Amino acid sequence: MFLARVIGTVVATRKDPGLAGTKLLVIQPLRPDRAPSGRPLVAVDSVGAGAAEEVFYVRGREAALPFLPAEVPTDAAIVGIVDHWSTS
Amino acid sequence: MFLARVIGTVVATRKDPGLAGTKLLVIQPLRPDRAPSGRPLVAVDSVGAGAAEEVFYVRGREAALPFLPAEVPTDAAIVGIVDHWSTS
Amino acid sequence: MFLARVIGTVVATRKDPGLAGTKLLVIQPLRPDRAPSGRPLVAVDSVGAGAAEEVFYVRGREAALPFLPAEVPTDAAIVGIVDHWSTS
Amino acid sequence: MFLARVIGTVVATRKDPGLAGTKLLVIQPLRPDRAPSGRPLVAVDSVGAGAAEEVFYVRGREAALPFLPAEVPTDAAIVGIVDHWSTS
Amino acid sequence: MFLARVIGTVVATRKDPGLAGTKLLVIQPLRPDRAPSGRPLVAVDSVGAGAAEEVFYVRGREAALPFLPAEVPTDAAIVGIVDHWSTS
Repeated sequence: MFLARVIGTVVATRKDPGLAGTKLLVIQPLRPDRAPSGRPLVAVDSVGAGAAEEVFYVRGREAALPFLPAEVPTDAAIVGIVDHWSTS
Repeated sequence: MFLARVIGTVVATRKDPGLAGTKLLVIQPLRPDRAPSGRPLVAVDSVGAGAAEEVFYVRGREAALPFLPAEVPTDAAIVGIVDHWSTS
Repeated sequence: MFLARVIGTVVATRKDPGLAGTKLLVIQPLRPDRAPSGRPLVAVDSVGAGAAEEVFYVRGREAALPFLPAEVPTDAAIVGIVDHWSTS
Repeated sequence: MFLARVIGTVVATRKDPGLAGTKLLVIQPLRPDRAPSGRPLVAVDSVGAGAAEEVFYVRGREAALPFLPAEVPTDAAIVGIVDHWSTS
Repeated sequence: MFLARVIGTVVATRKDPGLAGTKLLVIQPLRPDRAPSGRPLVAVDSVGAGAAEEVFYVRGREAALPFLPAEVPTDAAIVGIVDHWSTS
């Protein structure tokens, strides 16, 4: 999982039926020092994240787990909102 | 998932039977500011995307979900056509 | 999936039994303008690709699909031979 | 799997229920010469790793295996604490 | 799959039970011209590879296939020892 910040939203009327009703957020992966790192991506929110919040997200097959038994065809899902992190 | 633009098509007569009848598009991943980012790839279209449209696509095992119960051997599928996105 | 060119072959006598009888090709990923892009990899051929042909390949779990019900432990499979592609 | 060093912790009150009770660590991937390599990530600990320890971690679907039958929606899990490694 | 050279070993007493008894090798991915390419990784050996041998390895979910029905939580497995490869 990677740390990220919510930086936007995506509106898509024509999409896979499995994505109907999902909230699609644009997130920017972050390094622990909060520097942006890598290409922003589109993730499905499963925890009620909002604009500018710091989150962590899961990629790949696991990104569908929070939505089971619904089969949501996503490879990225926000699974946590960060209260804080610390690094040494 | 990543944002992308449809930039081309692929024609392949000899291919895995599971890909028969699919539409193969060449897509260019985009950053939210619409700058190209990374290597263009070949994705199967599941939503009727056309030339130059902005889309988002899913990678990995999830790319086969839109086509179930057919087993389409793809690791990339367009799952949405973007109306618009906004970033802060 | 990515575009690639077949650039070589691999011979391996000692290998996982699931790979017995497979054809192992070295492929170079290509950009749509045919410039090499990224590290060459070893893919199992499922479509009869030959030297110098342009192909596309699938990665990850989907790479095993063309060989089912045999369980071939590969994460890359050539699934199509390109007739031509066009980009705008 | 990659070598890494534990460099921090993440606290997240609002998270996927499948992550409840897990220990979330920030890890820095390492090269065998211990140079940092790539973006730090968040991994679930399955082996009792602590601050500054050298570990190796698994990514993707396999990251959920140590926690079965619980379905933990993670794509990264620490699966070993390194006693030592040697390279030639 | 990628070509690689075995460059070391990892010793880990505290590890996931699914990794008990496995041989953990450090491998350096190679380009076909044998130039190192990318970060060395830790792979489970399934074919009896030894120091300095040239191999190819599989990543992701497929890396667990050679060990079934045991569930080995690895995302990288050496599945072949290369006799030779040729590229044009």
